[in-house]
Amino acid sequence: MPGAIITLTTDFGSGSPYVAAMKGVILSINPEAAIVDVTHDVPPQDIRAGAIALAETTIRFPANSIHVAVVDPGVGTDRKILYTAFAGRHYIAPDNGLLTALARRGAPDRIIAIGNRDYWLPEVSTTFHGRDIMAPVAAHLSLGVSPENLGSPRDDLERIDWPEVRIVPGKIEGAITSIDSFGNLISSITEEMLADAPTDERVEITCDEHETRGIFKTYGDQPEMTLVALIGSSGNLELAIVGDSAKIMLGVSVDTPIVVKW
Amino acid sequence: MPGAIITLTTDFGSGSPYVAAMKGVILSINPEAAIVDVTHDVPPQDIRAGAIALAETTIRFPANSIHVAVVDPGVGTDRKILYTAFAGRHYIAPDNGLLTALARRGAPDRIIAIGNRDYWLPEVSTTFHGRDIMAPVAAHLSLGVSPENLGSPRDDLERIDWPEVRIVPGKIEGAITSIDSFGNLISSITEEMLADAPTDERVEITCDEHETRGIFKTYGDQPEMTLVALIGSSGNLELAIVGDSAKIMLGVSVDTPIVVKW
Amino acid sequence: MPGAIITLTTDFGSGSPYVAAMKGVILSINPEAAIVDVTHDVPPQDIRAGAIALAETTIRFPANSIHVAVVDPGVGTDRKILYTAFAGRHYIAPDNGLLTALARRGAPDRIIAIGNRDYWLPEVSTTFHGRDIMAPVAAHLSLGVSPENLGSPRDDLERIDWPEVRIVPGKIEGAITSIDSFGNLISSITEEMLADAPTDERVEITCDEHETRGIFKTYGDQPEMTLVALIGSSGNLELAIVGDSAKIMLGVSVDTPIVVKW
Repeated sequence: MPGAIITLTTDFGSGSPYVAAMKGVILSINPEAAIVDVTHDVPPQDIRAGAIALAETTIRFPANSIHVAVVDPGVGTDRKILYTAFAGRHYIAPDNGLLTALARRGAPDRIIAIGNRDYWLPEVSTTFHGRDIMAPVAAHLSLGVSPENLGSPRDDLERIDWPEVRIVPGKIEGAITSIDSFGNLISSITEEMLADAPTDERVEITCDEHETRGIFKTYGDQPEMTLVALIGSSGNLELAIVGDSAKIMLGVSVDTPIVVKW
Repeated sequence: MPGAIITLTTDFGSGSPYVAAMKGVILSINPEAAIVDVTHDVPPQDIRAGAIALAETTIRFPANSIHVAVVDPGVGTDRKILYTAFAGRHYIAPDNGLLTALARRGAPDRIIAIGNRDYWLPEVSTTFHGRDIMAPVAAHLSLGVSPENLGSPRDDLERIDWPEVRIVPGKIEGAITSIDSFGNLISSITEEMLADAPTDERVEITCDEHETRGIFKTYGDQPEMTLVALIGSSGNLELAIVGDSAKIMLGVSVDTPIVVKW
Repeated sequence: MPGAIITLTTDFGSGSPYVAAMKGVILSINPEAAIVDVTHDVPPQDIRAGAIALAETTIRFPANSIHVAVVDPGVGTDRKILYTAFAGRHYIAPDNGLLTALARRGAPDRIIAIGNRDYWLPEVSTTFHGRDIMAPVAAHLSLGVSPENLGSPRDDLERIDWPEVRIVPGKIEGAITSIDSFGNLISSITEEMLADAPTDERVEITCDEHETRGIFKTYGDQPEMTLVALIGSSGNLELAIVGDSAKIMLGVSVDTPIVVKW
């Protein structure tokens, strides 16, 4: 498939030549692949952050896109590399939990442990399987190689612990799971979980020692420097400081508990 | 138009998955669009910096390119989103002044307030119109949708205050308007404004308490660590420290006045 | 050649609109060029770091790719801009040593000093030849212009001093030459130089006051926070702290000596 879309999600850093090495390998096999960066700024070896970025973002791409994810502290050990498909989208990633957020949204169409060296680079380093295995496998897939040729079927994939949300009448307890580039604090509490909650001042949101009332529609609804709670663009409850960074102003980091009460 | 060029200018940060979400939306509508990043490192919500980057850079692209700009502190409020064209180039941006630098170079060919939901995503969040409105509109434009189908014509667009340059015989007073990645200080004073000024030591350039004489052709003309004034690649007067960062060495920031006297 | 691959390696910074200006120029000449970023995070004006990134990464791209490199402190002076080819790959770069790492791997196929203004932008600034000369020349090459039309042949190119490795029986002395985004310290000592060295605990690696024994296959072979030596993905000896940054933990920077003894 010339023009096939291949995306890359890594913890290599935005300016890393390692990303370009993967692109060079892909283009050497399929010069017409359209390669798109999802992000390369996953915090180093932070599998959960990678899992969230991968799940939130790749669902926006056309079905049939091929998504390669490399957050791989176990590279060179006996951890497997998997091919999986979710809702018609193809994923290639180490079997270390990096697909957990996707798997929580729905069962994979199928799982294959990548073992057929025909689709790898001839020389495989022990420290960069993104370049030597995942990139060439993705490129071959984009040319029409069938997933079952990549290796042997598997029943399941590794999952990492996921912060659970506790819901009781009148109260939801979750946590901050990611922080975006504006410093907005994105939580594990979804719009659906909040279906029974009021959105006016009767609802109280607490995060660390910070507190706000009401769930608003957007940032611009409130004066500058106000702490607001709203449903963000991923459909999750988030906390923002209007016109500034909630991360910096509140000193809050990932995993901080957040509680909604009414 | 397969192969149509769509550029993106945002304040999301270079590594932000929000950028990739916009790309996914565009490619889902036009899988053959060629998407190019202008920059995603506009300082958060800094409309003037975004306006400058957009104007300076997009003029380098082919006519017919589609340029999407998202620096959008008022997302979700009643601010409009505009389609405009300047010299055959297409722009989609919130109507918040982000097109000011372009509008100062020449009147827009036409302005349309984007209102036709046929070209938006079916579900529109209140906090990410870049993904839900601007990206799909750009993708539809790239497939040949006519701009007049996007909404209703408008007479004018919002402009932000722009630092004016004061010119009297023998003296020009401007300001630093941007700082590049090398720490070079780029001013609002253009080569044309300097047409009557000498370029040798008779001309004196003052910025904050720093002073230099002469306007040089390039950095390499002077010894390392010298403060030099020169006409930079955008055609504006800039101050540089040879082999180092003028921003750091001089401690100068955007909006600092700069005066040329002769 | 529509679909021709053009890569960019610069010190402009990942978020710099200067990169986009070069892309705009290229696409204005060849709208079907496939432009790929190698890296824009070469430390400002660090020719050696640029030379290493260029050599390590571009060899992964298909033959016939066109590689543009801009780390150019002498822009606007009388330094030349060169076209060269190495193993069928095309390079355009200032003649300031930026091609040294490539030239150390093998002689160039040919060298041409770029002088024919037919393939430049009509207006050439004195401070941004990447945009005004190198980008348009690359775009014209990608359309099939023959390299000999770009200028006059030259016999050789500038080289910068390169840290030499000293090899005596039982001892190899090199240096740290680059540090990756994980903080891994990559040295000038290659796998080939280590052919006679044992890989078990009989081998001792010293870098600054830090010391480790054995050369391992990968990071995951050792407990978290251990200092390990291994052959990295570029085929060079590197030092890593398992699960953390060796750069930060050891306080080691580029040019620090590293010694292997057995």
